Amino acid sequence: MRFGITFYPDQWSESYWNEAFAKIKEIGFDLVRFNEMGWAQTEPQEGKFDFSLLDKALNLCKKHKLKVILGTGAAQAPQWLIKKYPEILPVANDGQIHPEYGPRPNFCRDNKIYQKYALRLTEKIAARYAKHPAIDMWQIDNEPAYPPLDLSDNKDWCHCEATKKAFVAWAKNKYKNIKALNEAWGTEFWSGNFNNFEEISTPKVGMWNGGNPHIYLDWYRFKSEQLSGWLKLLKKTIRKYDNKHKVGTNSFTNIPNRIPDHEILSEEMDWFGWDIYPTATQNTDESLAQIADYWRSICERNGCEFIVGELQAGPTVRWGDPALVNPEDIKKWVKIIGERGATTIIFHNLRPPLYGCETGGYGLLDNDGKETERSRAVREIIKEIGKSGDQQIGERMGIFYSKSSEIETFQEEGWQRGAPNGWYSGRGELGLLFGLNSLAGAYKLVYPNRADFIFEKQLEEEVPNCKVLLLANPYLLSEKQFENIKKFVNQGGILVSDSRLRLKDERGHLLPYPGAKDWVKFLYIATEIITAKVGLAKLRAKPEGFRDLVDTDAGILAKYNDGFPAIIEKNIGKGKVIYSTFSLFSSLRNWENKNLLEFVKSRI
Amino acid sequence: MRFGITFYPDQWSESYWNEAFAKIKEIGFDLVRFNEMGWAQTEPQEGKFDFSLLDKALNLCKKHKLKVILGTGAAQAPQWLIKKYPEILPVANDGQIHPEYGPRPNFCRDNKIYQKYALRLTEKIAARYAKHPAIDMWQIDNEPAYPPLDLSDNKDWCHCEATKKAFVAWAKNKYKNIKALNEAWGTEFWSGNFNNFEEISTPKVGMWNGGNPHIYLDWYRFKSEQLSGWLKLLKKTIRKYDNKHKVGTNSFTNIPNRIPDHEILSEEMDWFGWDIYPTATQNTDESLAQIADYWRSICERNGCEFIVGELQAGPTVRWGDPALVNPEDIKKWVKIIGERGATTIIFHNLRPPLYGCETGGYGLLDNDGKETERSRAVREIIKEIGKSGDQQIGERMGIFYSKSSEIETFQEEGWQRGAPNGWYSGRGELGLLFGLNSLAGAYKLVYPNRADFIFEKQLEEEVPNCKVLLLANPYLLSEKQFENIKKFVNQGGILVSDSRLRLKDERGHLLPYPGAKDWVKFLYIATEIITAKVGLAKLRAKPEGFRDLVDTDAGILAKYNDGFPAIIEKNIGKGKVIYSTFSLFSSLRNWENKNLLEFVKSRI
Amino acid sequence: MRFGITFYPDQWSESYWNEAFAKIKEIGFDLVRFNEMGWAQTEPQEGKFDFSLLDKALNLCKKHKLKVILGTGAAQAPQWLIKKYPEILPVANDGQIHPEYGPRPNFCRDNKIYQKYALRLTEKIAARYAKHPAIDMWQIDNEPAYPPLDLSDNKDWCHCEATKKAFVAWAKNKYKNIKALNEAWGTEFWSGNFNNFEEISTPKVGMWNGGNPHIYLDWYRFKSEQLSGWLKLLKKTIRKYDNKHKVGTNSFTNIPNRIPDHEILSEEMDWFGWDIYPTATQNTDESLAQIADYWRSICERNGCEFIVGELQAGPTVRWGDPALVNPEDIKKWVKIIGERGATTIIFHNLRPPLYGCETGGYGLLDNDGKETERSRAVREIIKEIGKSGDQQIGERMGIFYSKSSEIETFQEEGWQRGAPNGWYSGRGELGLLFGLNSLAGAYKLVYPNRADFIFEKQLEEEVPNCKVLLLANPYLLSEKQFENIKKFVNQGGILVSDSRLRLKDERGHLLPYPGAKDWVKFLYIATEIITAKVGLAKLRAKPEGFRDLVDTDAGILAKYNDGFPAIIEKNIGKGKVIYSTFSLFSSLRNWENKNLLEFVKSRI
Repeated sequence: MRFGITFYPDQWSESYWNEAFAKIKEIGFDLVRFNEMGWAQTEPQEGKFDFSLLDKALNLCKKHKLKVILGTGAAQAPQWLIKKYPEILPVANDGQIHPEYGPRPNFCRDNKIYQKYALRLTEKIAARYAKHPAIDMWQIDNEPAYPPLDLSDNKDWCHCEATKKAFVAWAKNKYKNIKALNEAWGTEFWSGNFNNFEEISTPKVGMWNGGNPHIYLDWYRFKSEQLSGWLKLLKKTIRKYDNKHKVGTNSFTNIPNRIPDHEILSEEMDWFGWDIYPTATQNTDESLAQIADYWRSICERNGCEFIVGELQAGPTVRWGDPALVNPEDIKKWVKIIGERGATTIIFHNLRPPLYGCETGGYGLLDNDGKETERSRAVREIIKEIGKSGDQQIGERMGIFYSKSSEIETFQEEGWQRGAPNGWYSGRGELGLLFGLNSLAGAYKLVYPNRADFIFEKQLEEEVPNCKVLLLANPYLLSEKQFENIKKFVNQGGILVSDSRLRLKDERGHLLPYPGAKDWVKFLYIATEIITAKVGLAKLRAKPEGFRDLVDTDAGILAKYNDGFPAIIEKNIGKGKVIYSTFSLFSSLRNWENKNLLEFVKSRI
Repeated sequence: MRFGITFYPDQWSESYWNEAFAKIKEIGFDLVRFNEMGWAQTEPQEGKFDFSLLDKALNLCKKHKLKVILGTGAAQAPQWLIKKYPEILPVANDGQIHPEYGPRPNFCRDNKIYQKYALRLTEKIAARYAKHPAIDMWQIDNEPAYPPLDLSDNKDWCHCEATKKAFVAWAKNKYKNIKALNEAWGTEFWSGNFNNFEEISTPKVGMWNGGNPHIYLDWYRFKSEQLSGWLKLLKKTIRKYDNKHKVGTNSFTNIPNRIPDHEILSEEMDWFGWDIYPTATQNTDESLAQIADYWRSICERNGCEFIVGELQAGPTVRWGDPALVNPEDIKKWVKIIGERGATTIIFHNLRPPLYGCETGGYGLLDNDGKETERSRAVREIIKEIGKSGDQQIGERMGIFYSKSSEIETFQEEGWQRGAPNGWYSGRGELGLLFGLNSLAGAYKLVYPNRADFIFEKQLEEEVPNCKVLLLANPYLLSEKQFENIKKFVNQGGILVSDSRLRLKDERGHLLPYPGAKDWVKFLYIATEIITAKVGLAKLRAKPEGFRDLVDTDAGILAKYNDGFPAIIEKNIGKGKVIYSTFSLFSSLRNWENKNLLEFVKSRI
Repeated sequence: MRFGITFYPDQWSESYWNEAFAKIKEIGFDLVRFNEMGWAQTEPQEGKFDFSLLDKALNLCKKHKLKVILGTGAAQAPQWLIKKYPEILPVANDGQIHPEYGPRPNFCRDNKIYQKYALRLTEKIAARYAKHPAIDMWQIDNEPAYPPLDLSDNKDWCHCEATKKAFVAWAKNKYKNIKALNEAWGTEFWSGNFNNFEEISTPKVGMWNGGNPHIYLDWYRFKSEQLSGWLKLLKKTIRKYDNKHKVGTNSFTNIPNRIPDHEILSEEMDWFGWDIYPTATQNTDESLAQIADYWRSICERNGCEFIVGELQAGPTVRWGDPALVNPEDIKKWVKIIGERGATTIIFHNLRPPLYGCETGGYGLLDNDGKETERSRAVREIIKEIGKSGDQQIGERMGIFYSKSSEIETFQEEGWQRGAPNGWYSGRGELGLLFGLNSLAGAYKLVYPNRADFIFEKQLEEEVPNCKVLLLANPYLLSEKQFENIKKFVNQGGILVSDSRLRLKDERGHLLPYPGAKDWVKFLYIATEIITAKVGLAKLRAKPEGFRDLVDTDAGILAKYNDGFPAIIEKNIGKGKVIYSTFSLFSSLRNWENKNLLEFVKSRI
């Protein structure tokens, strides 16, 4: 296991650099990361490149025997570019133009002008440093996403001309003809039909407000694929000059619709970094472990190295209430993450910046550059477990993570109406993977052991390779995904399914006739109980629509007050299925019901 | 009493239609309703009309002996129209252009291009089906309103050029000269005067935020009259081809400023439909009865047939928390509504749609098209009371409903500041007729008997025809309205008045000198106690300004702690007046004070 | 002490004027104030001036021996000006154009066309009435601020072309060259550098949302200076015609970022009026006294006469819940304000307006013009203390009020996330000077005695002239300010300092090395405890980073549970310093800890 830290030379006077790199080495780090957003330093004016800063910094790293994860720098546009081409600024669904400076990203990745300049910058950097002995890996882009990253409003981005054009092209490529698109988007509703692809626009209605849910799903998928396509193009550009060093990028978890689908985003990345600020996002040990398992699974899925790109090294300062970091916190975090397979942990950052929008934040050292109890803790942890590497703990269960179901659920449950104080309160109550109570509930069956998350495309392609598979929020499932779940059971797997199993297909269309019901008829759940709020305690009588559906072959594990089955178990093929007629996983999370938890554990 | 249900053939494969209509008939329905928003099916491209769907559907209805309430289809614009004429999209007060697709309505009814195309469609439909034997009634438009209908923001619509032009013309027609307009709008305040009608614009400040309240009142009235005018034009178009079948439309109750004034909207309609989703809007039996009485009164006022255009037949799915529907609910609703005079109830809808923004919602049948306990309940209720018709219960009291006072109160009490979580929380707490605590309080004196609501224009024209008249929120009253109230009492009526009686005239101007005070001086209420929050329990001492106003001829029914009169009774002419110096009706609602309720009942 | 009241002749029929002025005189007032926003009356059409209203009103005042504070009238633009030049409307950060009429101000003071017309109006008024015997003082503008004044949204204004141009010019003038600007604005962060002044724009990101805090600080300062510059220009225009009468304007306290810096705004004003509505803003006696001391201090700082420009005379009506006013309230307010040095109190207003956006609000008289218990109370208070004037109470302590720290703190603590229901709830909880819990806590050490507030520019220029100086929220301090604080102590002053002393410089840059630590090393506070939420009760163990910082010369007054110093006292020069390692002043406010309060009092 390797340890590193971010240090941005451009933010500090040159006279301090040597001291800084020496201190980094002395604490025990092997890696430094910088230049993700350094465009303005490398190309201060159009076409005038200045590599002196990077040259000096990399040479100093070499001198101190530090390796570098070098950003290619185009993750924030310089002011001269925006001044010359203001059309690269993102546009919100209500027509608002994104501010020129301030919140990231201040450009739309779909814009061809941005792409041209960003690729030229990438090429210059790659060409110059591909053979520099300090280079360890490349980082392209940084936390790639459409706005808002830091904005606190609910607007939907980006609706600029470039994105619109890209969306229409994407839709044309996916559906080939307008009839297929109309069918998939369910436009035979309220006169929503399109006659041709020219009539299509980006869906400006946003996630809520009564828009078409099928278009929104595709809009979300389109955005993930666009970002992924851009990353692939950046990687290809580096590969012109360098076939040796790994290329990757960072991302993080956040409100579902703000962050791209990681399974798609990390395609073709050699490494994939997780940015995590545990006290800022109020993570419990369990939720931290959950996301670590999630990230490792993403990386295993796409063959990336699992890296923590940014780990909070000191207190937050802005953006909400400051959240402190204790030395013990850091040790605990490293242990949890290490046990779950990260090969590298990069702390953010060496010293609190003296200016800018992170002024005073996140520093491992104190404001004056002196060591802190936290930096001393990092010394110790590096010595202790630095070399111990990945440790398996217990047997792994599988958890299916349906991003499409998450998006659909989030859209249906709403936000503005459901979470009064906006995403901040929601984040506190619901955990970092917003809206996914059921996912967190499933993880309760696993923790403190490890889980393997299984993703949408993955389940399309293969039968899950685990003994127990937990289906949390299995609301939208394609036919192929469902076939693989059936195979999993027939081949001997134990399936624990939440209600709402394959109520809809992958497009968000309701499945009228068979759905999952053809398979084991009791798995069909009426719409009456789709809300996570309805649980054992409240649902004293059977939900309507079950009378004809009860499978007399199944064993009844739990009943409602009126005797109707609540949890049922059935052997199918070589395996078995345990399913609930209520929101089992959400209930495990929300009720903190130890008896129920232990009971379900005892059956798997 | 007749029963029907919505079924939208365009949303289902043709192979299902026959089964669907057969099932509808078999359950016991006589009526089907469809095509309110079917424009894209009938005119898939500009000028190319395709009636095959409607032909087939209507012929099938005929075959199954079902009658049809046929929508003329222009309540949502097709994409080709918006693509060609994007100027038909509504514009918000902050300049936002309405999304092309998604939330209704995606057009501004004031736009002449929209009107031209919509009228042509209406004409085609009317010409083709006027003599079709399946036709029962026509529905023009659907839930006509300016945006937002489904949007959850607080923006004000529409501020497009067409609406602006219409508003200026409306103002010119109403006030004739700019001096009269300045006087009515109270522009001699903070340099608000207009020199000519060209200086006028739509009031972009919205309902709150310190705008001119008199302009807002007129803006609201203008919008109601515009919508009504459009409905009249649509009806006239149908009448070119059909003098036989009734023509009407649907509406619903909602946040006051979002929904047009129903008294105006239903003018010249032959039928007027009430769309109601009782569990979605958390109606109690009492509040459902209240709105049913309200709707019947609206219909009686304008000579329309009272129809329930949409009655929730199954659980909601999107837009907030799903709300379930029990079979018992349905029976109860039909009974309550039937007792209050509806001639026809149309359920929404046969089956949960498989796609679109209502995916999985409201179905009487299950997702797979099978019957449910709800559909079985509908069978029973149709058999039981289907033929029994309208039943009078008890003697009717009159409740004056001042829409202008409601708008004014809503504006003053505020929203963003008063109801933290937006309209959703407000809806829960305050009931469906938002802001009208006092109206709901008055209804407590009536329920379970029936009330006759009396409306603004109606009170302008006639003396109320009831024995007891409750004045809930009588804040804004015109001189004519006030004269008719006085006549009502003199002729022997019993008047129970809330405080704030005619504090302002119909323009929202404060009445300085006489107000209602000339009549019975104690009816004048000082501004000190205009808030609904001040009640008997809190107001232990008399409000200031009353010392000189006490009418020594009046009997004192209730006192404050310091002996000052709180409820007073006085014989005037052949009748009597009971009035309170606090917010009597709001108190009846908010305090749930049975003693107070029984006491007031005992005096009337 | 003089008393007056507002009465706006334009809002009332001419037949009432004589009665109104007679009543004003009879109640005991000497002063009337009107015409702040009377532009449309004086110049009803472009270039056509009509002085008849002002002539008559001023002559009537003369007749009744009333003196007038005459507004020059340009504080709201007439509709003909906006119609002709819509570009004078303010523009929000998201591009929204301000509504033409309604909320104030409906123009941007930076616009040259507005300025030209407003200056011409001012000149006309000044020329005509400079020698009128009724004139007492001039009021230029009214509550000058960029929007929003009355809007309830969080948008940032103004981003029109005129303001942008002014901001660039201001920045150019302040920094001379782009390198200095880049350094001050800390743009070497996320590629934020500017190559030249042409690349600069107004910061459209607003106060929150991850923008650059240094630019925001300058943006706030720029806006204060712009407004001040406009006031100076208006005053100069009057001085062309009148060297005798005082010239001033009104302002008020509000959400920090909405209201300009009063120290800057009141520069060169002869009088500076405080507009205060105590029940509307839920002031306690203590908070009212605090702002009164604050206002007197502002006035003393800039040599203005301290006037209450508007004191609430009756209940509010709109804009939130109505807030009543008792006769006893008025007497108490006048006493508190009088004891704190106001020379003049103007009530707002004589009668509740009959129309407009303040319909029914604030009247001293009743709706019908009759007297109220409030007007009788005013009679009495004028008689009682009208002649008694300013009374010193006790010895004054000094409180340093750092507007820059307030802005920075407000930005960091956030709003949308921190105060769920927006500014209204925040206002209730945090007091009128939003975000300044620590300021209110400091005032607890003073009240019921008086405080002298000391302001940013003032502390730049001079050593505080008081015995005890309370440093509330001393987060951002310039070197000069810090030097003057040191001198204050060395010369014998007693300093009580909150934590975070000079953590940042006046630009908002973190001070890395010395900060305040060079002086007395224990004054340096680690970033770990910068939050106001961390206090004695919660912080049971010493904050990290203190181990090496404890000053062994200092006396320890209070300890944490683990023995680490919490409050320390040290003699320096002829004076002494008492400081805390936690948020002392916020704690005094939030904990209502009498023991702590008495303890701190006993040491000063």
